[in-house]
Amino acid sequence: MKFAACIEYDGSPFFGWQRLSHGPTVQGNVEKALSTVAAEPIAVVCAGRTDSGVHGIGQIIHFETNAQRPLRGWVFGTNAHLPDGVAMRWIQPVADDFHARFSARSRRYRYIILNRQARPALLQQRVCWQHGALNAELMHEAAQALLGEQDFSSFRAAGCQANHPMREMLEISVRRDGEFIYLDLVANAFLHHMVRNIAGSLLMVGAEERPVAWMAELLAQRNRALAGMTAPASGLYFVHVDYPERFGLASDYHLPRFIL
Amino acid sequence: MKFAACIEYDGSPFFGWQRLSHGPTVQGNVEKALSTVAAEPIAVVCAGRTDSGVHGIGQIIHFETNAQRPLRGWVFGTNAHLPDGVAMRWIQPVADDFHARFSARSRRYRYIILNRQARPALLQQRVCWQHGALNAELMHEAAQALLGEQDFSSFRAAGCQANHPMREMLEISVRRDGEFIYLDLVANAFLHHMVRNIAGSLLMVGAEERPVAWMAELLAQRNRALAGMTAPASGLYFVHVDYPERFGLASDYHLPRFIL
Repeated sequence: MKFAACIEYDGSPFFGWQRLSHGPTVQGNVEKALSTVAAEPIAVVCAGRTDSGVHGIGQIIHFETNAQRPLRGWVFGTNAHLPDGVAMRWIQPVADDFHARFSARSRRYRYIILNRQARPALLQQRVCWQHGALNAELMHEAAQALLGEQDFSSFRAAGCQANHPMREMLEISVRRDGEFIYLDLVANAFLHHMVRNIAGSLLMVGAEERPVAWMAELLAQRNRALAGMTAPASGLYFVHVDYPERFGLASDYHLPRFIL
Repeated sequence: MKFAACIEYDGSPFFGWQRLSHGPTVQGNVEKALSTVAAEPIAVVCAGRTDSGVHGIGQIIHFETNAQRPLRGWVFGTNAHLPDGVAMRWIQPVADDFHARFSARSRRYRYIILNRQARPALLQQRVCWQHGALNAELMHEAAQALLGEQDFSSFRAAGCQANHPMREMLEISVRRDGEFIYLDLVANAFLHHMVRNIAGSLLMVGAEERPVAWMAELLAQRNRALAGMTAPASGLYFVHVDYPERFGLASDYHLPRFIL
């Protein structure tokens, strides 16, 4: 039997998604919990690996098992064996040709900036804090240059293992809601650090340290050294993965929104 | 000089608001940070003490000092000396007759219930989780019995130190927003555990273990032993304190709202 499941996690206590021998990871904990529930070793494949500190709302995994459990039993059993910062939201059987990574048509991320004088207390490690004033309209305008199929080399981490730097940005927007600024992105796939590198450059536009046209220039230069810093992982949420309808996975998604 | 300040805190790492000798508290940390910035011992008075695990969005304090600092200096300096889970949002000078507790006309609390099958991961210790279905409309209807000036003995903790059990409930509402249920309350003041005891009984109405009319009956009985459990502290947020306009304190407030 093949299953797909949705995993939510607070990134702050983990060394990222991917299983490691030297520290706690989300994948490591999920596989351990599932293996306990199934009473056999289970390995999972995810839609998109996330770095240390990055949060997951709608991470999708698939795995195969011989174990037969009611769906509620998988959810309650797995959650009982997971640490506090990780939970399985739902699970469902899927067709044999479903693949959490390769079947995905697009991924949605949200980057959250808390823009106020005082640092976060209640949302420590859940937002990126910027105390200087940011102009979200300028950030939104600048971001539009990234739409479409583009070479994202300027926003690609040095260690990125992707075969090529071309990605198709389907949606990108920046919007203020009180003290919060939300950067929403949907692309077919993302390069390593791509969202955080885009966020880092947009922060410079928002602070009016760079003009709106700078984002288009950066993209055209294809040179990571010219772009802004990699924005902190704490503000980044992996929100949703879109799959072809025939797989029957949940198409709704939840955007993290904090009104304090 | 007398100052009023607004304090935000994550309740989970603290033994409540009130200064203690045997564990970390919000008051203890705030006084220590302010005393460092002022270079003299500072004692603060708060609008409402909160229990261990209860969160603060708009806790108001006042204190007196001889130290002269720019307002930005107080905020940045104090936050630099506070642990991660506490922050000063703003500070302002106030009239000599302002008192954080006695000048308050009303307090606003929000109680947040996450109502879904899977326990919280990203919002662990920030919500009250209920996996069984809850009917928010029934909860809202039942809650209306608590409006007005009433004897709240049925929802009062055994150790409550208030002089009498009469409180005036000015607003009470229950509303669902996706997986979340928000219980909002405004009263002139609250008894010890009053919000959590009301929440605990409303949870029984929402689960249809008790009828809507039960809340009115409980209130009339004035007997704590008949009401529901004390709901967990993790779901409770102290949102706002309302003062007479002449003191010039911020009248806007922010409600915690999580959309995941």
